[in-house]
Amino acid sequence: MVKRFIFNSSLFIILQLFFLFATGQTIQVAPGVQKITSGTIDQFTPYSFCGALPLTGALTQLPAAKLPFSIGEIKISVNGRGTVVQIPLDDTEQLYGFGMQIGSFNQRGLKKRPIVNDNPLNDLGYTHGPTTFYVSNKGYGVLINTARYTTFYCGNTAKLDQSAGETKATNGGNSVEELYKNDGKISGSVTVDIPGAKGIEVFVFEGPDIKTAMQRYNLFSGGGALPAIWGLGVKYRVKADFNQYQVDKMAAYFRDNHIPCDVLGLEPRWQTASYSCSYVWNKSFFPSPELFVDSMKNKGFHINLWEHAFVSPKSPLYQPLRNKAGNYLVWNGLVPDFADTAAANIFADYHRQTFVKKGISGFKMDECDNSNLAMGNATWSFPELSQFPSGIDGEQMHQLFGLLYQKTIYGIYKKLNQRTYLDVRASNAFASSYPAALYSDTYLHEEYIRMILNSGFAGMIWSPEVRESNTIKDFMRRSQTAVLSAQTLYNSWYLQNPPWLQINIEKNNKGELMGDAKQVEADIRKLLNFRMSLIPYLYNAFADYHFKGIPPFRALVMDYPQDKNTFNLSDEYMIGESILAAPLTEKMDERKVYLPEGNWYDYNTRQKYEGGKYYTIRPDLNQLPIFIKEGTILPLAKPVEYVSPDTKFEITCFVYGQAAKAALFEDDGITFNYENGAYNYLSLAWNKNKGIVKRTGNFKNSRYVIKNWEVIK
Amino acid sequence: MVKRFIFNSSLFIILQLFFLFATGQTIQVAPGVQKITSGTIDQFTPYSFCGALPLTGALTQLPAAKLPFSIGEIKISVNGRGTVVQIPLDDTEQLYGFGMQIGSFNQRGLKKRPIVNDNPLNDLGYTHGPTTFYVSNKGYGVLINTARYTTFYCGNTAKLDQSAGETKATNGGNSVEELYKNDGKISGSVTVDIPGAKGIEVFVFEGPDIKTAMQRYNLFSGGGALPAIWGLGVKYRVKADFNQYQVDKMAAYFRDNHIPCDVLGLEPRWQTASYSCSYVWNKSFFPSPELFVDSMKNKGFHINLWEHAFVSPKSPLYQPLRNKAGNYLVWNGLVPDFADTAAANIFADYHRQTFVKKGISGFKMDECDNSNLAMGNATWSFPELSQFPSGIDGEQMHQLFGLLYQKTIYGIYKKLNQRTYLDVRASNAFASSYPAALYSDTYLHEEYIRMILNSGFAGMIWSPEVRESNTIKDFMRRSQTAVLSAQTLYNSWYLQNPPWLQINIEKNNKGELMGDAKQVEADIRKLLNFRMSLIPYLYNAFADYHFKGIPPFRALVMDYPQDKNTFNLSDEYMIGESILAAPLTEKMDERKVYLPEGNWYDYNTRQKYEGGKYYTIRPDLNQLPIFIKEGTILPLAKPVEYVSPDTKFEITCFVYGQAAKAALFEDDGITFNYENGAYNYLSLAWNKNKGIVKRTGNFKNSRYVIKNWEVIK
Repeated sequence: MVKRFIFNSSLFIILQLFFLFATGQTIQVAPGVQKITSGTIDQFTPYSFCGALPLTGALTQLPAAKLPFSIGEIKISVNGRGTVVQIPLDDTEQLYGFGMQIGSFNQRGLKKRPIVNDNPLNDLGYTHGPTTFYVSNKGYGVLINTARYTTFYCGNTAKLDQSAGETKATNGGNSVEELYKNDGKISGSVTVDIPGAKGIEVFVFEGPDIKTAMQRYNLFSGGGALPAIWGLGVKYRVKADFNQYQVDKMAAYFRDNHIPCDVLGLEPRWQTASYSCSYVWNKSFFPSPELFVDSMKNKGFHINLWEHAFVSPKSPLYQPLRNKAGNYLVWNGLVPDFADTAAANIFADYHRQTFVKKGISGFKMDECDNSNLAMGNATWSFPELSQFPSGIDGEQMHQLFGLLYQKTIYGIYKKLNQRTYLDVRASNAFASSYPAALYSDTYLHEEYIRMILNSGFAGMIWSPEVRESNTIKDFMRRSQTAVLSAQTLYNSWYLQNPPWLQINIEKNNKGELMGDAKQVEADIRKLLNFRMSLIPYLYNAFADYHFKGIPPFRALVMDYPQDKNTFNLSDEYMIGESILAAPLTEKMDERKVYLPEGNWYDYNTRQKYEGGKYYTIRPDLNQLPIFIKEGTILPLAKPVEYVSPDTKFEITCFVYGQAAKAALFEDDGITFNYENGAYNYLSLAWNKNKGIVKRTGNFKNSRYVIKNWEVIK
Repeated sequence: MVKRFIFNSSLFIILQLFFLFATGQTIQVAPGVQKITSGTIDQFTPYSFCGALPLTGALTQLPAAKLPFSIGEIKISVNGRGTVVQIPLDDTEQLYGFGMQIGSFNQRGLKKRPIVNDNPLNDLGYTHGPTTFYVSNKGYGVLINTARYTTFYCGNTAKLDQSAGETKATNGGNSVEELYKNDGKISGSVTVDIPGAKGIEVFVFEGPDIKTAMQRYNLFSGGGALPAIWGLGVKYRVKADFNQYQVDKMAAYFRDNHIPCDVLGLEPRWQTASYSCSYVWNKSFFPSPELFVDSMKNKGFHINLWEHAFVSPKSPLYQPLRNKAGNYLVWNGLVPDFADTAAANIFADYHRQTFVKKGISGFKMDECDNSNLAMGNATWSFPELSQFPSGIDGEQMHQLFGLLYQKTIYGIYKKLNQRTYLDVRASNAFASSYPAALYSDTYLHEEYIRMILNSGFAGMIWSPEVRESNTIKDFMRRSQTAVLSAQTLYNSWYLQNPPWLQINIEKNNKGELMGDAKQVEADIRKLLNFRMSLIPYLYNAFADYHFKGIPPFRALVMDYPQDKNTFNLSDEYMIGESILAAPLTEKMDERKVYLPEGNWYDYNTRQKYEGGKYYTIRPDLNQLPIFIKEGTILPLAKPVEYVSPDTKFEITCFVYGQAAKAALFEDDGITFNYENGAYNYLSLAWNKNKGIVKRTGNFKNSRYVIKNWEVIK
């Protein structure tokens, strides 16, 4: 039995040798972006579904760069098992990326499998938002364009031909620890394993620095997302079984108590069936959905609907999608073949007619993150062996499902020239242009903070949501982080009352509020008001994300790539140009903060600090742990309770240092007219004790009124 | 870019349709064993390396059976992604197997990936001893012959074509829990996903019952292992940094204190280099290894050497294996290409000359379980993308590495007609004939117990080793389990003194013994003496494993497949024909025991219990929690401190019930001469108040002397 396959095997080895280390063809696909191709490329890849064109103009304006290695040194080998890519790596390089990694930050020396999943599982690389993309602090990025389950060895393998029998002088050791010390050496390459691939495309993004490499990636992906301006306010998701009357009452609570809120999210009960989904209003609980949505709109609330993409037999979408779905069911529901435009259009058309045109301003796209992968049971998604009419297989579909789902839903809004801010449970590469925030059930605050940093290497938006808490301190610390993130979200899907009135789930649902509920509410009001004050600044940071590709939230190493103290700094981050955030967790009364070169001001104490050093801060629970960079202006608005199309922001410019400047991006905030030039930039400057405002651009209705200047020295 | 691959894709779909559900060719390969083949079979599979011939004679004697489905209902489909196998499953079937599963017992409804690894990771199926093999309580077994990473969906997927839009009447629900209840349905099949495979062999083992199906599997694999008889005594592994003098002192401790011990295991320091390995005695610490081994032998100790298979540049094996190794290193050491007989022979020849011929009676084959798989870093093994001169790839090599390593080492002993009992950190299918006990670092007592049961579905031997403990109670409970297992092992690789003198690591290594050390030592002596008493009985159970394929340790469902109470009973097991063990853990002062049909005697209280019911037992820490089946005889020997080639066991027959019987297998215990008929069976019977012993067979030197009979009524 064995013998008859020896011929096959020999052929196999010959083929291996033939393909081994054949370097692919290289072409330039955009300014500073090169693509190397080798072998036969998969039909279904993240890039094949990229929904936007590169912003070539902006790419052209980035400085020219030189890679630290010759592009020909990237080796691609294809054999019967799959494809292997080897990319040079020098001994001092630090690596970041692989999407929204949960457990690690600096990926040098690690093995990473960026695979769609909500369970970090020993930090193997599983995440809601995987990308097969990393950047180096030497100033370049590499993307392996595949939707297959891929493993990256980030400089932690050693090849036989490298070592030639070198050995260290260890001789037995004298302690048990020494005896088990290993004699390993690491390699000078990133090695990428793509089983099943018969070839590969590798995109290389030049720098010259890590931030510019990220900008190139984001601009190549269509530019960063610019959410609807109201999306930068506060989102609150109500209890899963709330009916129309209860949602109404919750809305009244916010307005009566002057707690800012822009979006209310509905959870499963709005539908007649949810596991799987019917996408049909449940009239027993929402008897008049259109009236409800309208009345909410009148009170300044946008309505966001929870759903997932597994289509119940009870859904009007079932029959139309019956022949455009995978051959395995999830919760008895169809898995739409989103890789087929026709299937995506059926799904989108229904949503447009039934929901978007009737005022629904966004969706929470749940359960697209293959919980099956990390679970011993298997009822939460479709198997990898699934087949789809388009030809995509289950493995590739898993990697792309969240991406295609959000593309489908976002496309509705884009075509209607209506902006949105979505929630999505999974994403992938080339998705920078989608205004969809990722979220998670994992709920470790330290990880949620780290994911803010990692989102900047992923071209993704991350929402470190707040739910219940063990202590008020924990709740407030989490709220601080939520305010200092891309989306401030309270997810109360299992809470009758807002968590700030009762942090304990059981008591909350019995209506037993905390004794000091009103004090905690006041503290939360203060934090959320700060969030509303920050909207113009954040909105400008998102405009920089869109037009220049600069991540609005990013690790310090991206701005200070030469500073070794930033290489492993995974709990501080930049927001826009001027703000450095250093969040605290429940465990901390104080924390150490590293401030990079330059001078910095503690926002709360207004004390000035010299950069390049470590300090200790002790912010109160109702303060924000942030520093402002000298030479910048922080434009803070008078807080509003929600952002309406005609909101005018009254702004005070806080000037840090003797001379300072800032910019504010201005447009209608709700359409894509900015793509056709309908926007302004306000240039703010403080010089010689004088504030100067210059407005340039084609947007006619101003939204910002500069009221005051305040200098902090 | 996308367009040019559309032709490929269409072709791909056509190929998919072509192969879809083509059923393979079926042939009978042994009595009651059928093989279905479809597509192109991999060169490297567990079966391709099966080291033994089927025991056809024994297979022939098993009763004929009929599968509960037609063999043609097993569907195999091959497409561009890999191979999928679907096996029928009825609604009431219970499934067991997938090797030495750590976290689960009854696998029905689970997703299982039986992949070599020491980390159970959410009970995904990773284990030191994976097999792509399961058995059903309907009386058959199925083995997918592949060394690729394979996923089994055990009746938890639903296909689109099965449901045709059926739906349950749920309407929104009234609680949050109900809202999230899913509308799933499960399928009537086991679905197997083998990515990368271009075809597959499926072995089907007929029953008629689950035990007979297991017997067929074991007999087809060459019959179960029969370890050297001294292997059934007590093994003690000394501290990793002990030198020759310290080992000698430890040996004296055992004999001076009359604590049974047959094997002493040496850990890393015996070598000049261990991570990676030199396989050279470190003369600084073992100045005269040959004298040492001989003197130990004279005191009745066998010496077992720790090693792993990654070959240091300091090793004499390095140059000979330099061109017969994988292209990636581990700890700077070579990975021998054990799939190539020439490489295996070089490794074996060196071990034979250097160690086995000089009296080393066994090895502990460590680190062959790919710790990389479940770790975010990657320095503990070779990458899956590794290539080997034989043509096997890294993924397949991982699945087979422990199997091939033990085959290589075991082959030395087999050829020398010298029996052994090995330790190995990984194994796979068709390995029943290897006398190698698996072990683990995981150390959860509940899991260690469950793995005893699962070993019976794996054709493997499991050693629930004892190390340190939190409490004396924990230590004693673990010792009870170790005594009631296939190998009684104390692994003190980081302990200066035996753990029964001090359970706390730090104090142990400082030489601070417990106040009641002598009492605990006395309790341990009592337990280990019981182990020595049990050797003839255990040895007979292993003979049944070898000659009949009956697992010596097995779940109750194997003996009582009709009894629903056994389906999920994962903490009780049978030892041989007569003993039911119900181990306790640290948490328990008492436990519930289910006794199946028939009558049973509590070994300690001698109380008789009626089967089919649950009882509560409260064994002391120095007792064994076992029951004896009515109608059987438990032959217990007068304990010896070690088993030598001329040990005569003086046996008392404990008779349970009015009429009872048992058998004892007798041979030299140390050679393979039994394969040529050099063995006896002692038939023991108690009838009409009289004990009868009949000895039949060709072994000339008797080892058993029946001294007494004692009747328990």
